[in-house]
Amino acid sequence: MKKKPLILVTNDDGISAPGIRALISVMKEIGDVVVVAPDSPQSATGHSITIYNTLYINKVNIDDDVEQEYSCSGTPVDSVKFAVKEILKRKPDLCVSGVNHGSNSSINVIYSGTMSAAVEAGMEGIPAIGFSLLDYDWNADFEPSKPFIKKIAKQVLEQGLPKGVILNVNLPKLPEKDIKGIKICRQANAMWEERFDKRTNPHGREYYWLTGEFVNMDDGEDTDEWALAHGYVSVVPVQYDLTAYHAMQQLNSWKLNS
Amino acid sequence: MKKKPLILVTNDDGISAPGIRALISVMKEIGDVVVVAPDSPQSATGHSITIYNTLYINKVNIDDDVEQEYSCSGTPVDSVKFAVKEILKRKPDLCVSGVNHGSNSSINVIYSGTMSAAVEAGMEGIPAIGFSLLDYDWNADFEPSKPFIKKIAKQVLEQGLPKGVILNVNLPKLPEKDIKGIKICRQANAMWEERFDKRTNPHGREYYWLTGEFVNMDDGEDTDEWALAHGYVSVVPVQYDLTAYHAMQQLNSWKLNS
Repeated sequence: MKKKPLILVTNDDGISAPGIRALISVMKEIGDVVVVAPDSPQSATGHSITIYNTLYINKVNIDDDVEQEYSCSGTPVDSVKFAVKEILKRKPDLCVSGVNHGSNSSINVIYSGTMSAAVEAGMEGIPAIGFSLLDYDWNADFEPSKPFIKKIAKQVLEQGLPKGVILNVNLPKLPEKDIKGIKICRQANAMWEERFDKRTNPHGREYYWLTGEFVNMDDGEDTDEWALAHGYVSVVPVQYDLTAYHAMQQLNSWKLNS
Repeated sequence: MKKKPLILVTNDDGISAPGIRALISVMKEIGDVVVVAPDSPQSATGHSITIYNTLYINKVNIDDDVEQEYSCSGTPVDSVKFAVKEILKRKPDLCVSGVNHGSNSSINVIYSGTMSAAVEAGMEGIPAIGFSLLDYDWNADFEPSKPFIKKIAKQVLEQGLPKGVILNVNLPKLPEKDIKGIKICRQANAMWEERFDKRTNPHGREYYWLTGEFVNMDDGEDTDEWALAHGYVSVVPVQYDLTAYHAMQQLNSWKLNS
């Protein structure tokens, strides 16, 4: 009998978020599941790690059918590091992060704790995928996403991923019958046009809330934004070698050593 | 008379760190300087932003010769966003971040608040550079780095940078006369081999410190690690389009829609 794959599940919305529960329910159908996730919401913490503070880890039991479940007082990336070094007996066959409550398409990938957790797993040589649903609601409906999540996770388990590559999967907020399929995409050239909302606290001191509008500046039909706007699940392969190789020749033409 | 360039200075070690003071002293020689930096150390916060908490901004006056100086209760990326949207009257000609107390070479770029601040400025279309000295000491000697910082900053002001490209500059801990020059490099394939140091707090509860060893797995002579180990200043062009274009063909061969 073939051994079941070992799957590490994490997220950035916290271990009790409905999104991670949806992801666990799909992973239980295809493997043995270990969950290590932050004990509180950690959205937009990027690739942050906890080096100036202590970490507390708690064994928890939210879902009866998983092998082990732990909450971590740190960030999503801390959770992956702790899982790999302290909890898991062997390197997992797959790490999945999410399902995030809200989009991690285009430039959001860089702020995303969900994706940073997946990238950290990828850096450890574990095939890894981040999943995000385009619905920020805590009570979002994850059911339509499940068949797509299962299909992509199974493909990664079967085929593996190229070294240094992690998948960023975003799922449109649509009924299953209206989702047109899965598209391999590039990251759209988009950004946040920030605003700072200035207020005064009860003690008379000014403070700010960071807020803003998402602006897509990319009209390409090969982007994740295009795919999502047209009813597709977007899959962007991302990498942690950030070197802009195309810029090296130009920089080498500078006279930096004269 | 030619107008002096407007230079935004930030960091992740906090506004009172000696590293940012060294950077400010160099930038004052080439432009008008505005400083917006975190009010406390923010190392390893990556591209984290503050969306669930309030931000406090304080006008401070640490250095008499700069145009304006502000401390920010948030992260390095928050500081850049606030500077660009709320403080600066026009888009700066350059953003410099650092000088970081410690290396941001190879994979450290992904955890680095210093580099994330520079990347955020790059995303805003501002030519941007992160500077880091390979010395974690608070009282590190930044003097030998200054001529190299000045040379690189002036080149970027003169030549600009390709769209979407930010410079990650690391400086060896060497006397100026022993620094061999400046090398354009790629990010070395290296990683952290983490350990979790388990302790018990005074109340009997177990906690952990994240620690680890840096492991360079790359023997290429074109990497930042090689350059630094051989007495060069390393310059890696980095990008925020994380798409792994080379992996797209392979993923497209998967049967995801059948």
